[in-house]
Amino acid sequence: MAASAFPLKDELDIVIPTIRNLDFLEMWRPFFQPYHLIIVQDGDPSKVIKVPDGFDCELYNRNDINKILGPKASCISFKDSACRCFGYMVSKKKYIFTIDDDCFVAKDPSGKDIDALRQHINNLLHPATPYFFNTLYDPFSEGADFVRGYPFSLREGVPTAVSHGLWLNIPDYDAPTQLVKPRERNTRYVDAVMTLPKGILFPMCGMNLAFDRSLIGPAMYFGLMGDGQPIGRYDDMWAGWCVKVICDHLGLGIKTGLPYIWHSKASNPFVNLKKEYKGIFWQEEMIPFFQDVILPKECITVQSCYKELAKQVKDKLGKIDPYFVKLADAMVTWIDAWDELNPPAKATNSK
Amino acid sequence: MAASAFPLKDELDIVIPTIRNLDFLEMWRPFFQPYHLIIVQDGDPSKVIKVPDGFDCELYNRNDINKILGPKASCISFKDSACRCFGYMVSKKKYIFTIDDDCFVAKDPSGKDIDALRQHINNLLHPATPYFFNTLYDPFSEGADFVRGYPFSLREGVPTAVSHGLWLNIPDYDAPTQLVKPRERNTRYVDAVMTLPKGILFPMCGMNLAFDRSLIGPAMYFGLMGDGQPIGRYDDMWAGWCVKVICDHLGLGIKTGLPYIWHSKASNPFVNLKKEYKGIFWQEEMIPFFQDVILPKECITVQSCYKELAKQVKDKLGKIDPYFVKLADAMVTWIDAWDELNPPAKATNSK
Repeated sequence: MAASAFPLKDELDIVIPTIRNLDFLEMWRPFFQPYHLIIVQDGDPSKVIKVPDGFDCELYNRNDINKILGPKASCISFKDSACRCFGYMVSKKKYIFTIDDDCFVAKDPSGKDIDALRQHINNLLHPATPYFFNTLYDPFSEGADFVRGYPFSLREGVPTAVSHGLWLNIPDYDAPTQLVKPRERNTRYVDAVMTLPKGILFPMCGMNLAFDRSLIGPAMYFGLMGDGQPIGRYDDMWAGWCVKVICDHLGLGIKTGLPYIWHSKASNPFVNLKKEYKGIFWQEEMIPFFQDVILPKECITVQSCYKELAKQVKDKLGKIDPYFVKLADAMVTWIDAWDELNPPAKATNSK
Repeated sequence: MAASAFPLKDELDIVIPTIRNLDFLEMWRPFFQPYHLIIVQDGDPSKVIKVPDGFDCELYNRNDINKILGPKASCISFKDSACRCFGYMVSKKKYIFTIDDDCFVAKDPSGKDIDALRQHINNLLHPATPYFFNTLYDPFSEGADFVRGYPFSLREGVPTAVSHGLWLNIPDYDAPTQLVKPRERNTRYVDAVMTLPKGILFPMCGMNLAFDRSLIGPAMYFGLMGDGQPIGRYDDMWAGWCVKVICDHLGLGIKTGLPYIWHSKASNPFVNLKKEYKGIFWQEEMIPFFQDVILPKECITVQSCYKELAKQVKDKLGKIDPYFVKLADAMVTWIDAWDELNPPAKATNSK
């Protein structure tokens, strides 16, 4: 577990994919200003993105990505927020927090602004407990502990690799649910953080997400979406399923729950349906695939797990559609690019 | 799923184990009075237990248990609240709610009295989703749904067999934690219900628990505790582990979270330590045992699953201590007694 002092100013980058001026940062200023921002521009590189004054940031557009990665840039999505994972790759920090540019500061039930970043860091700095469920939720929260019947040998927990935060106001629904429930808003503030148990998959949303790059970074690939690809809106889901099976294999934990952000605007459900509809079919085969994945014991690094996973994707999902063959190749390219930009000697303490 | 109209007056019994007068029922009167109560007296049968006027109840003491079960009464614990499971056996209703006599009505954050029973019934009447985690918790709660990335084929869910409620004020801690944190109180109201994922065990507390007797009743055996037994305070845990592996095998769901009750008084940690200390050791072998249990496909009823489990308990845990051989025999006796009192022709729609 990290022994670093809060708030880890020099150990965390904030990654934001965007196509517009980052006015939303004004509201986050008290929380984000101490940190370095990595902006990944996901559309036309000739457009200039304005960032409010006073933020320490670097911006990468498509031309930069092409220049830095050369032919390997093919693994980074274009015209889709999936391109954010390029920011994970060029960061040199231990932790990443990524947030969408339509997400604002939420308030807790007492009316206080929620410092989402602080809660994410807290989640990441405390162990996770994937092997047994604690009915009072996170045993490391203030005023909580392990309950009667929780085996003592499992109370040390495992390192937390991912902290998945939630959203008030506009829930992260798929297009069919958006169409059926256009007025539904999430107003339920659930005051809990919990570890996702081993062996169970979850829908990881990239809107409000933090992770320990040194533990799981190379698996945080957001796949091929957007321009020229047959699906969209499965970038974070794909990353989540890959990350979960690798965390389970390597003995790392994933937490979900707090912190909340305020998600301001529902995306267009008709556009979303067009992006999603193949994913909705394919998902019915992707989930059983990920549920059954077995990684060999020899895979003891994230990179080796990920390359093995790419191989199994090609073998098993490649039969569904040629897209998965292309995706499997891109997964390998991604790891090669990651290792090029993060050579072992310079790498942080990868497991 | 049950199609019965709320609040199921004729389909639910409330089971209360006790050694004292049931004054605590006064506070529950608005919620419990419509229902039938089964009181199981867990100590000296010559003592008279007073029940406040106006409740429809039947009481069983040790003499009654001996008379009804004959030699099979050996499977029912004496001088321990584990005897409550006798109430499950003599009930003829579809649903059971069981509560401890030191549990009072809790208030929600708005200050309103919580109708725990109503929430339990709500949990039991809606499906559970054990095969994939929904990050917005129970998709069947008001204002919630399945999030993006949740496979559509899994949204129908499975029948809910168990609803595990929580406790404000005194948390359900083991003796070591009680000793270390004597002043800790649970003040965190987590506004969530969730399905426990398949394949993960949890510490099931019997203080505030409801279940569908027709789906899982015969597995709700609280083991051998109290008078003449080497351990205590593992009765509900034991039941929970057995119930969870059988629910996983039969495709049934277990929910945890809401409702809360107000747990008024911590039991004596020194007494608890004496009851628990062997369990604390044994648990380290019991948990891996339950994590690895495989029930054969041929086991398609709760009874057949439970007898198979008893066999495996004897074979594998019997090596730890002769207690487990005795417990395994008692598990078989329990099922025989259950079937005697609930003959197939009269049984409700067991799976």
